[in-house]
Amino acid sequence: MASSASSEISKRKIVNGPGDYVLEDVPHLSDYIPDLPTYPNPLQDHPAYSVVKQYFVHVDDSVPQKVVVHKDGPRGIHFRRAGARQKVYFQPDDVHACIVTCGGLCPGLNTVVREIVCGLYHMYGVKKVLGIDGGYMGFYAKNTVCLDPKVVNVIHKRGGTILGTSRGGHDTSKIVDSIQDRGINQVYIIGGDGTQRGAALIFEEIRRRGLKVSVAGIPKTIDNDIPVIDKSFGFDTAVEEAQRAINAAHVEAESFENCIGLVKVMGRYSGFIAMYATLASRDVDCCLIPESPFYLEGPGGLFEYIEKRLKEDGHMVVVIAEGAGQELLSESMQSMTDASGNKLLQDVGLWLSQRIKDYFSKERKMPINLKYIDPTYMIRAVPSNASDNVYCTLLAQSAVHGAMAGYTGFTSGLVNGRHTYIPFNRIIEKQNKVVITDRMWARLLSSTNQPSFLSAKDVEPSTPL
Amino acid sequence: MASSASSEISKRKIVNGPGDYVLEDVPHLSDYIPDLPTYPNPLQDHPAYSVVKQYFVHVDDSVPQKVVVHKDGPRGIHFRRAGARQKVYFQPDDVHACIVTCGGLCPGLNTVVREIVCGLYHMYGVKKVLGIDGGYMGFYAKNTVCLDPKVVNVIHKRGGTILGTSRGGHDTSKIVDSIQDRGINQVYIIGGDGTQRGAALIFEEIRRRGLKVSVAGIPKTIDNDIPVIDKSFGFDTAVEEAQRAINAAHVEAESFENCIGLVKVMGRYSGFIAMYATLASRDVDCCLIPESPFYLEGPGGLFEYIEKRLKEDGHMVVVIAEGAGQELLSESMQSMTDASGNKLLQDVGLWLSQRIKDYFSKERKMPINLKYIDPTYMIRAVPSNASDNVYCTLLAQSAVHGAMAGYTGFTSGLVNGRHTYIPFNRIIEKQNKVVITDRMWARLLSSTNQPSFLSAKDVEPSTPL
Amino acid sequence: MASSASSEISKRKIVNGPGDYVLEDVPHLSDYIPDLPTYPNPLQDHPAYSVVKQYFVHVDDSVPQKVVVHKDGPRGIHFRRAGARQKVYFQPDDVHACIVTCGGLCPGLNTVVREIVCGLYHMYGVKKVLGIDGGYMGFYAKNTVCLDPKVVNVIHKRGGTILGTSRGGHDTSKIVDSIQDRGINQVYIIGGDGTQRGAALIFEEIRRRGLKVSVAGIPKTIDNDIPVIDKSFGFDTAVEEAQRAINAAHVEAESFENCIGLVKVMGRYSGFIAMYATLASRDVDCCLIPESPFYLEGPGGLFEYIEKRLKEDGHMVVVIAEGAGQELLSESMQSMTDASGNKLLQDVGLWLSQRIKDYFSKERKMPINLKYIDPTYMIRAVPSNASDNVYCTLLAQSAVHGAMAGYTGFTSGLVNGRHTYIPFNRIIEKQNKVVITDRMWARLLSSTNQPSFLSAKDVEPSTPL
Amino acid sequence: MASSASSEISKRKIVNGPGDYVLEDVPHLSDYIPDLPTYPNPLQDHPAYSVVKQYFVHVDDSVPQKVVVHKDGPRGIHFRRAGARQKVYFQPDDVHACIVTCGGLCPGLNTVVREIVCGLYHMYGVKKVLGIDGGYMGFYAKNTVCLDPKVVNVIHKRGGTILGTSRGGHDTSKIVDSIQDRGINQVYIIGGDGTQRGAALIFEEIRRRGLKVSVAGIPKTIDNDIPVIDKSFGFDTAVEEAQRAINAAHVEAESFENCIGLVKVMGRYSGFIAMYATLASRDVDCCLIPESPFYLEGPGGLFEYIEKRLKEDGHMVVVIAEGAGQELLSESMQSMTDASGNKLLQDVGLWLSQRIKDYFSKERKMPINLKYIDPTYMIRAVPSNASDNVYCTLLAQSAVHGAMAGYTGFTSGLVNGRHTYIPFNRIIEKQNKVVITDRMWARLLSSTNQPSFLSAKDVEPSTPL
Repeated sequence: MASSASSEISKRKIVNGPGDYVLEDVPHLSDYIPDLPTYPNPLQDHPAYSVVKQYFVHVDDSVPQKVVVHKDGPRGIHFRRAGARQKVYFQPDDVHACIVTCGGLCPGLNTVVREIVCGLYHMYGVKKVLGIDGGYMGFYAKNTVCLDPKVVNVIHKRGGTILGTSRGGHDTSKIVDSIQDRGINQVYIIGGDGTQRGAALIFEEIRRRGLKVSVAGIPKTIDNDIPVIDKSFGFDTAVEEAQRAINAAHVEAESFENCIGLVKVMGRYSGFIAMYATLASRDVDCCLIPESPFYLEGPGGLFEYIEKRLKEDGHMVVVIAEGAGQELLSESMQSMTDASGNKLLQDVGLWLSQRIKDYFSKERKMPINLKYIDPTYMIRAVPSNASDNVYCTLLAQSAVHGAMAGYTGFTSGLVNGRHTYIPFNRIIEKQNKVVITDRMWARLLSSTNQPSFLSAKDVEPSTPL
Repeated sequence: MASSASSEISKRKIVNGPGDYVLEDVPHLSDYIPDLPTYPNPLQDHPAYSVVKQYFVHVDDSVPQKVVVHKDGPRGIHFRRAGARQKVYFQPDDVHACIVTCGGLCPGLNTVVREIVCGLYHMYGVKKVLGIDGGYMGFYAKNTVCLDPKVVNVIHKRGGTILGTSRGGHDTSKIVDSIQDRGINQVYIIGGDGTQRGAALIFEEIRRRGLKVSVAGIPKTIDNDIPVIDKSFGFDTAVEEAQRAINAAHVEAESFENCIGLVKVMGRYSGFIAMYATLASRDVDCCLIPESPFYLEGPGGLFEYIEKRLKEDGHMVVVIAEGAGQELLSESMQSMTDASGNKLLQDVGLWLSQRIKDYFSKERKMPINLKYIDPTYMIRAVPSNASDNVYCTLLAQSAVHGAMAGYTGFTSGLVNGRHTYIPFNRIIEKQNKVVITDRMWARLLSSTNQPSFLSAKDVEPSTPL
Repeated sequence: MASSASSEISKRKIVNGPGDYVLEDVPHLSDYIPDLPTYPNPLQDHPAYSVVKQYFVHVDDSVPQKVVVHKDGPRGIHFRRAGARQKVYFQPDDVHACIVTCGGLCPGLNTVVREIVCGLYHMYGVKKVLGIDGGYMGFYAKNTVCLDPKVVNVIHKRGGTILGTSRGGHDTSKIVDSIQDRGINQVYIIGGDGTQRGAALIFEEIRRRGLKVSVAGIPKTIDNDIPVIDKSFGFDTAVEEAQRAINAAHVEAESFENCIGLVKVMGRYSGFIAMYATLASRDVDCCLIPESPFYLEGPGGLFEYIEKRLKEDGHMVVVIAEGAGQELLSESMQSMTDASGNKLLQDVGLWLSQRIKDYFSKERKMPINLKYIDPTYMIRAVPSNASDNVYCTLLAQSAVHGAMAGYTGFTSGLVNGRHTYIPFNRIIEKQNKVVITDRMWARLLSSTNQPSFLSAKDVEPSTPL
Repeated sequence: MASSASSEISKRKIVNGPGDYVLEDVPHLSDYIPDLPTYPNPLQDHPAYSVVKQYFVHVDDSVPQKVVVHKDGPRGIHFRRAGARQKVYFQPDDVHACIVTCGGLCPGLNTVVREIVCGLYHMYGVKKVLGIDGGYMGFYAKNTVCLDPKVVNVIHKRGGTILGTSRGGHDTSKIVDSIQDRGINQVYIIGGDGTQRGAALIFEEIRRRGLKVSVAGIPKTIDNDIPVIDKSFGFDTAVEEAQRAINAAHVEAESFENCIGLVKVMGRYSGFIAMYATLASRDVDCCLIPESPFYLEGPGGLFEYIEKRLKEDGHMVVVIAEGAGQELLSESMQSMTDASGNKLLQDVGLWLSQRIKDYFSKERKMPINLKYIDPTYMIRAVPSNASDNVYCTLLAQSAVHGAMAGYTGFTSGLVNGRHTYIPFNRIIEKQNKVVITDRMWARLLSSTNQPSFLSAKDVEPSTPL
């Protein structure tokens, strides 16, 4: 009963204020461990911080989730501001931290690892930091590596993750056993929504066992599909790289007659990379994303639009997110179940290439050229750009400040330009998606002139306030 | 008297609300021209926008300047949210817009120009857009160029500005004469704080003459020294490029004995590029900015620190913003007034190079190598990166929406991640500067381990709330 | 009969000299048109050339094909040195040139086009240059574009070809009809071995008709598969770009357990890009090219080697040229004829990916990760680098000098670092291939440590002289 | 006397053949040490080389210096071809090699170091390789570092030299003492003409002492000023990077009125980088190099040309090699001796900037903008590109094969596309310079349209053969 009650609390730790102010707070070690001692923050004696006024974040500082407000409107949901606190709940010598990276690659992973290590070391004097090798399964199946500022010194200039990574492999109780066995008391978990879900389970189990262990998440998603936060680290770098592929597709398309340059970019459930790369490059005639269903044949369909563009311009560029058109893909897969090559066809880019070629050669008897580019791994593997590097630094330092201050069960995240601590449940309850009835998607449609693939009935009536 | 009263109004157009809510609003044509007709926004019929819900910005939407709030704190200053309005004050066929770029180069200038042209053309059907050639003086002294989507189609892939630019040359009444003579009724002015000050004068004069002409500013500053806004366009790109120079300095420094790599970056009054490039690259041992005075000799001085680093590591990297140490420069210039070469010495990078060389050769008899890099023009001239491209697009579209909606005397700016209209006076009343008693600078000091060059008395005592 | 005799001559125009010196000369307009008038080369009056000593190439200048010689060895085959001649066979005002680009994209195409135009214009004062649109078929099926220095001024900074290109579409007599109809008397043909074969036919037909039309080829092959010449333009740029993909594959492979990064690069019949990119990057564990047959299963096979590398290092990188392993592919295709997806399988990269995955999952029950990158179009579409730009300039100018001097039926090519004129037959009679019993391939084997996939009987015994 | 005789021999080791064939051979250990034992080359048993036919270079293989030949002309000077020999003069276990890098940075230094280490290790099984730290003076004043394939594995991806470098510090007898004391028997010296001169002295002293020590030079010069060889490593990379600066200068110049973009590039005595970057970029209006004297004032002078370009185009780009115009500089320095800032003026770029500004402001009263870019250290510090990487590999391997085969007192160099061994005296007797009466410079003049700055009397009459 105690456990279910505490679980209740962990899910919602709400503070209310005047004007409908709501703070969605994060758990704290003191929520379930009474009488924890506190210590002055060692940063007070740090030369670099000695001249800083108000270095420590005020205990009441919070950041609103919604910044478009009305004079008379409610104040709404807020998150706790990230940053160093005057009191910490760990003595530096007692801290034994670990870091794990999970899921696919993303530019900036190494920078986050580096800055957690350097933040712990240089700001708080923490010396014991363990790298878990190869994702969650590394907790119980793999060797670990000792991390210090020298080991991580230049890793931010490399792509990938020096810790190694993997998908899946999450076994909550074995992981918490391992944490307990090794005497770890700060766990930094870098990964996407699935990983953060795992982090939430680890936190719950740790609280259930009553351990003094802080669990801090750093959200990682090259697709930018994590909600609440402004933007995920590595996203800017990914869009930059995606443009290179789009540019190549454009050069190819312009050089051949009736040529279609087709670029597949990442985006399993969310089309942000496709959308931003399209907006940034301006060379794209059609951008297809998971959030906006499309169809191939008939009036208003993709084939019709392609034919129109080829007739007008002689070439076109199509960008497709990997998760787009999956429902079409499933349909056509049905009839292909027996083919030995069907696994390959799960790639929407290859599938769409084939469909376009078939349509124009068989149905239209119109010779076309199609150049297909899949830059996925070339995008994921680049080092993060300067902007993402600074972002990763602040994310990592926020996580370190939070864990030292005794917060736990939180994700470090940027909200309206400010670093905050967000409860896990808000990060994992849904995905961030392109809202196709919103302005940004309209901007894209206006930029590409592509059909909306929507009939009037597909959308609710526009109701400007 | 009427004029001074209206001037008063233009400076402050304040709306108050509950909870100490304050809206610092921008002027509107209807403030001084009565009975202006309005028209439905043509976007309503635009296919790309047909399915957008709530495309039009609510008349009461505003964005707070401060997003770190307390439960019981006041709501504070807000700005009007940018975006399309349901009613516009110009009929597309009647619009005659002009665009001018002023001041130094900055990555993204061409993208802003492109997107104003394309925004007017594609969103509102405006066909008459004039490019003013060579900055403010182009209004009365130079030829103009007709801009349409075809002319500007690929300019975002090039650095510089296709319109040409210049410093100074502002003559308010001649400029407004020219605007009146040419029948221009929307003026888009892209430039830094001096330019925006000029734009404010143009706006005042236009209002004094009672002309139906919207004046919209787009803030441009590679130094990021414009206040209120989150970040200026081109800044990310500039930091990225600055890193290349820092990296080169690091490679040189590491390859020679007792070698100092010295990089001068832009930043006349504000050290943001130096600070962010230092934080992003992690290769810098000392970062000198205008906001943080430093001294060369004696205990705690730069020379002492350099000697320490050379003895420990054998090399070091120094980044200096062009405006740093100007007070030292003036002093030493005093004794050099007669030298024929003194103009060259106004360059702080060359001056510091010489001082360091002299110190170590003459006073310390210690042979050093110094490699000086000034990447200024190589940074300014690159095309904007993907992130800046998207940012420029939104800035430009916001300006267009504002002008079409009859707003005037405003600057389009990003505030806490949202596009807003900011009154000119807020943009020009002071400069955005690195606050050296704030956390970000402390992060930098912690990262470089450089001395703070401050004695205890220089700063007020730290008073955490 | 006369025609077949002249054809004989065109194929071989041999000059012999002492010490077994052989010059394989190229045809000349005067070979089949008697009494052609000559004119002084206008370069004599060109200010830029006024101070050049010996600007004009000596009529006897030739370049040996073989530069590794013995004291007592024969002198062997030579080619005519390219360059300006004292006498030209065209008056500038009478020249009507045309340029056509054929086949796939290659970095530098636009530079070659630019420099033919600028060379004709600036060096010889030729004003009439026509661009044929879209490859050979553009001669009779498409519009043309007038080219002058202004039109081509900045095209070298873009990838692709502004003329457009296509494969095939060669109809000799229609093309020569078109040349005759338009009054063209210099034809510049940029393309690969197929294209040069077409150029040879055009030349033969022109000679048969007795036309005063020079036909000059510029060899283009991103695969570097054209014989005799040192290296094809764009090749360096292609290898540079290919390294980006290899680097990404390496980053991916290092970050996951048992991960194979697989990169497919261009190289239908020749593995030069794969080989040089492997040698340049040093991140590759196995490089597969068309010239070196390999097998998958059994001792000494690829699967065995992969398993060994994964066990030792946990990851590996494989580079495969698109033409490698085609004989294996055909075998396995046999059994897949009915699959609807079989077209996709013709891609050796996808095929090999599938085979590797199948082998390890089914036969070895060993979980692996495989990351497949196909950077083909991203490589082809980049602009040429500085080195290739200069190379393209010299190739183009050589072709112009040759045509002006009345040579015809030749390809402009670099031989042992010198520009020469090579008879078509030498260019098209065979392909340049990686010699796997030569030193460079041994260097690669030594660098990757991959198996040679050869049994002793596959190669003749090593017989060092 | 013995010494002077042997010195005589070392300077010229000539072999003559029929047809005026001359081989300028390199010294060999057996020249001065009788009865040296030889061993079979271990490469014979190397799996990678097992299938190579004729892997070993024929003892008579040579490469002509001149490849433009006439049917009846003499065969001329040849160099010994580089490569592995059937017999070697060192047993792998007995080899103790050392590597030193001297002089300024150049892209590719680390690749050369890496490939000497890997070549010795993987090809010959040599395990003892020492890195000398910090140039020649490192032989007697500094620590050394043990090099093996693991240490050097990824250094080719970084700029600079991991060994450190310095200028000067050459003390022949102390260096040879150090070599003798450490038991080193293969010395690899990477550096420019000064360094190779030092290498020659070391070789002479070693031979005088009768030591069995091979001395191999690898020529390094970013300026490409070393004679005989086709091109120095890193040169292509340097030209590529130089273009970035030129492009920036062009963007700046185009954006301002009467704007001059001025770029200073490396080239103390030879203007190759300036010339090739100008030819590659096509954005340059004037290229000034050490080999081509110029003057500022009066008819045909630089000021006149600048004014003409500004009047015609409104902007221009000037590229100047650092060694250009030194005679002008010395003159004007004369009158500035007292100025405290005069040291700065030794920089020709700053000096020319000032002269241009002064001329137009004082004499012409014409407002101009001048943007000066000095990318020197940004160019030197980049990693080498793919093409240079492969080149460095072959250079290094050639040096290793040569030393193992007992050759000494040689430089490894590319001649007409083939790797050769060149006697030191040929490398150091003069500098490679741009021949301004040759075709390439004429091409440049034609491309920029700049004045030749030559009066008729300055050059000998053009005498085409």
